[in-house]
Order: sequence, then structure tokens, then C-alpha cells
Amino acid sequence: MILVNDRFVERTEATVDIEDRGYQFGDGVYEVIRVYGGAPFLLDEHMARLARSLREIRLEPPYGIDELTDKIRRLITLNALGDGIVYLQITRGASPRTHGFPKNAHSVLTAYTQTLDRPLQALQEGIRAHLTEDIRWLRCDIKSLNLLGSVLAKQEALDKGCAEAILHRGKTVTEGSASNVFALIGGVWFTHPANHLILDGITRRSVLRIMQELDMPAKEEAVTVEQLLAAEELIVTSTTQEVMPVVAVDGRPIGDGSVGPWTRRLQEAFEAAIRETANRSS
Amino acid sequence: MILVNDRFVERTEATVDIEDRGYQFGDGVYEVIRVYGGAPFLLDEHMARLARSLREIRLEPPYGIDELTDKIRRLITLNALGDGIVYLQITRGASPRTHGFPKNAHSVLTAYTQTLDRPLQALQEGIRAHLTEDIRWLRCDIKSLNLLGSVLAKQEALDKGCAEAILHRGKTVTEGSASNVFALIGGVWFTHPANHLILDGITRRSVLRIMQELDMPAKEEAVTVEQLLAAEELIVTSTTQEVMPVVAVDGRPIGDGSVGPWTRRLQEAFEAAIRETANRSS
Repeated sequence: MILVNDRFVERTEATVDIEDRGYQFGDGVYEVIRVYGGAPFLLDEHMARLARSLREIRLEPPYGIDELTDKIRRLITLNALGDGIVYLQITRGASPRTHGFPKNAHSVLTAYTQTLDRPLQALQEGIRAHLTEDIRWLRCDIKSLNLLGSVLAKQEALDKGCAEAILHRGKTVTEGSASNVFALIGGVWFTHPANHLILDGITRRSVLRIMQELDMPAKEEAVTVEQLLAAEELIVTSTTQEVMPVVAVDGRPIGDGSVGPWTRRLQEAFEAAIRETANRSS
Repeated sequence: MILVNDRFVERTEATVDIEDRGYQFGDGVYEVIRVYGGAPFLLDEHMARLARSLREIRLEPPYGIDELTDKIRRLITLNALGDGIVYLQITRGASPRTHGFPKNAHSVLTAYTQTLDRPLQALQEGIRAHLTEDIRWLRCDIKSLNLLGSVLAKQEALDKGCAEAILHRGKTVTEGSASNVFALIGGVWFTHPANHLILDGITRRSVLRIMQELDMPAKEEAVTVEQLLAAEELIVTSTTQEVMPVVAVDGRPIGDGSVGPWTRRLQEAFEAAIRETANRSS
């Protein structure tokens, strides 16, 4: 089943109007929530971020976040989802096309689930990444549907046999095309501060908390491309990529080119959090 | 009737899949073509720009541009459109959501017409504009569906009682939220060069040609906000706004606050081009 506004409908019934502002302007925001063993992971944090994104683009959701949270749980149950994701987006609705906000449009919410295995092999072996210039807009803190810059960066990486693109504005590393970046440099994890140039990832925050628990020094401070390439260890984090080791960037090995010990400790702690969520639900 | 790929269908039949990449990523491009007296205005230029936008994001249209041009003409006839616009967009189609290009998706084209009167009163009296920082991505030369930056800028202008937002990156004026900007400074029309920071408007090019014909000096050279505010005359140009005088910016009058003589000469020449198009069709 698909959630469309407040109704659960069949997939075939879930269609969008051609004048939906999500389709014509990317005028909307979204979230991707990980589900482990039937339990949504860090759901409240995703919902709080969604509420913030909505506020930042002055978009009134069809109903409140608490009701939406209940419906997301119901959607997971209805679809008997085990391991997978919930994708949800809210747009400013259908209205004759004009840039300014429509007066009489109603926002449109769609949400659906998808089964998804964890990327276990990649988590074990690490991935290769590709550096490319960050050409996105200056409000990357909003999780909006304007993702063409990320799409083009990711495809460029894939074309080069890499699984992720790491973006930089000039010399400064910002984040991945669909992830945040942490570089271990001189025994300190560096990640770009959560300002308008990056999305403050839910997994990013979770990993920062884990670092604190593990007494691993961490700084929310940007690094240069040069510093990144000289890092001892490198990871990207996201809802679906979890704590993903990066073992090479544009063909240059990070550290000795294998997954480092600090990354392994982070992965173990992150695994424990996942297990706890899955166990809670069963 | 609505054109969906190669079929003309009723409006009610024209819907979009919730996993269309246009809806989830803004992964697509578009054009708005003006129609005067049933005749499309500068259609070939719009189609050439569409072809370029498609190439730049590596999007294969469902069929060739020549066939599309024929179908656009047919759509205008089918809908007996007099004065109005054709809106058309092409997305990378529906596919399970992942940032990289889908392997098996088919691009989706939708096009429809809309009646639209010319903004005669505004063309006569001029409009007020509002300055705001340009926060958009660095490929504004692509006419993509990632328009949230433009939407927010336009709404900010509307909230301040202005009809258009004029964008600037730092001190440099780029373009309007849905238009190009020309400032008459010391008897020379200045407009931002057609690089990655602006959309090379079809009306912009048309106006540059008219300036040449009228022996009005013009330079494709950026101006600062300060220079813009001191301009003798100021216009914004677009498919629907035509040659639109700007008589005040953030409450400060441009020149003496009325529409200047050079703007009137441009408007007359542009009117003649419109009349020629409309007459050709009748």
C-alpha cells in the first residue's frame, strides 16, 4: 500500500497531477527512513528534520507530524516490511504553474515502503569514491526535492567505477552526493559543520554521538581536499549506506587502502544500535 | 488535450507516476513557449535550447526534437489556443528511486497549453522589483526542474509587494527569478553574460538582436547591485513578461521612476516582432 495524504491506496492508484509543484518546481521536501526488522530507525529524528525542512520552505503539511508518524508506522505494518526503507515526500500540491506560492493549493504527501538489504559486502570491504565540484544551491540544509546536482555528481562517480561522489566547494570538502563525510586526521574525526552547505544527516548525528560514547575525538570542522586525501581513515554516512568505509578516492588509497580500526569500532557500535532497534520491535 | 509522450490525451488521463524522477529529484528540463494569435513565438529557438538542456543532463527524449516541434504545433491547433503558452517538460521517467541514472527507465514528456493574456498594464506602467541573494546552483544555464531557489526568491518579492526578484551573487547582479535583467548605464545596456550563472533567455537574445537593430549599445557584462540601483533605465525580459520595465527596486526609483524612452523603443520593436508572428499565422 501507498500512503497518499491520509489514505492508504494501492500502488496503481497512487498518481500525481502533472501540475503538482513537486513535478514542475521540485517544490517539496522528503525523508528516507531506514527500517530494520520491521522497526523504523531514528524515526523521531527524521520527523523533526522533516518539520524543519517544511518550515524553511514555508510548506504546510496536510496534517501534523505526530499523525504522520503514526501513519508511517501503520504503513510499515500494512506492508509487513522487514528490512527496508520508507520514502516520504510532501509537495506544495497542484496549481496552475506560477513561481509564487499558490493560494488555494493543498500540499500532497506520498509515502511508500521498499524492501532493501543492508550493503553488507560494501560495509565489509569499503567503497571507492570520486571527488567532484559541489555545484548545488546554498540551502543544502533543506532536504528538498531539488536533487539534480546530486544526481549528476553520483552518476559521474558511477561512470568512474566509484560508489559515491565526495563534493568540494573549491578546496573545501562539503559532503557526499547522498551522504556525509568523516575524515580521520591525526586521530581526530573531522566532518563539515551543519550549516547551509550540507544536510545534517540523521546518521551523521548518530555517528557523532557514537564517537562521543567511544571517546573518539571529533570536530565539526571542514577539511580541504588535500587533507582528505591524506586522511588515516575515511567514511561516508547515510541512512542507507550506514557507516561506509571509503578505501580509495579517485584511485588513491586512503591509509593503507583497507578498512581501518577506528572505522570498525564505529561500525560495531552502529550495528549495536541497529540490533537494539530491531529487537525492540520483535 | 495534453501531450503525454506521443499521445494526445484528456487532462484527466494525464497523471504522473509517484516514482517519476521528475517528482523525486527534479530530474528533467522544461520550456515555456509563448503563443500569440495561435502562432508559437520563437519556437525553433526554444526547441534548440531544450535540446541543449537535455544534452547537458544526458537525458534522451522519447523522440526527436523535429517530431516534438510538430507535435507542439498540433497541440496548439487541437486546443484552438489563441494567446497563451505551451508548457512542456521531459523527465528521466519512472524507476525505483536511486540517485544514479536508471538503466531501464523511459523519459516522460508532458506538454499542455494555457491561455494567457499579455501583461499590458504592467508593460505600460512598469513593475517594482526586490533584490535578494542568488542561492541557486551553479548550472543555471540548464533550464531544469530544480526551481525551488527561484520559487522562494519570487515569493519573497511578492511578499514585499514586488512583481519580480532580482538576484545577486554577492555584489554581482545575475538575473531575475524568472527573467533576465538589462540595466541602461551611461547609455549602454548591460546584461549578465550567458554563462553557467544565468539562463540564456530566448527573450534575452531577441532583445539583444533588437538592440543591435536599433543601434543601442549593449554589453554582455555583469553589473553590481550599486550600478543597477543607479541605472537610467531597467528592464527584465522573459517569455511571459516580455520587455518589462522596472521602475523601482526595493522602494528606490530607477531613473525618475517612470518608464524611460529607450525601454519604450525596445517595447515597440518587440511588439512589431509579436505582430509579425501573429499575422504570419492568420
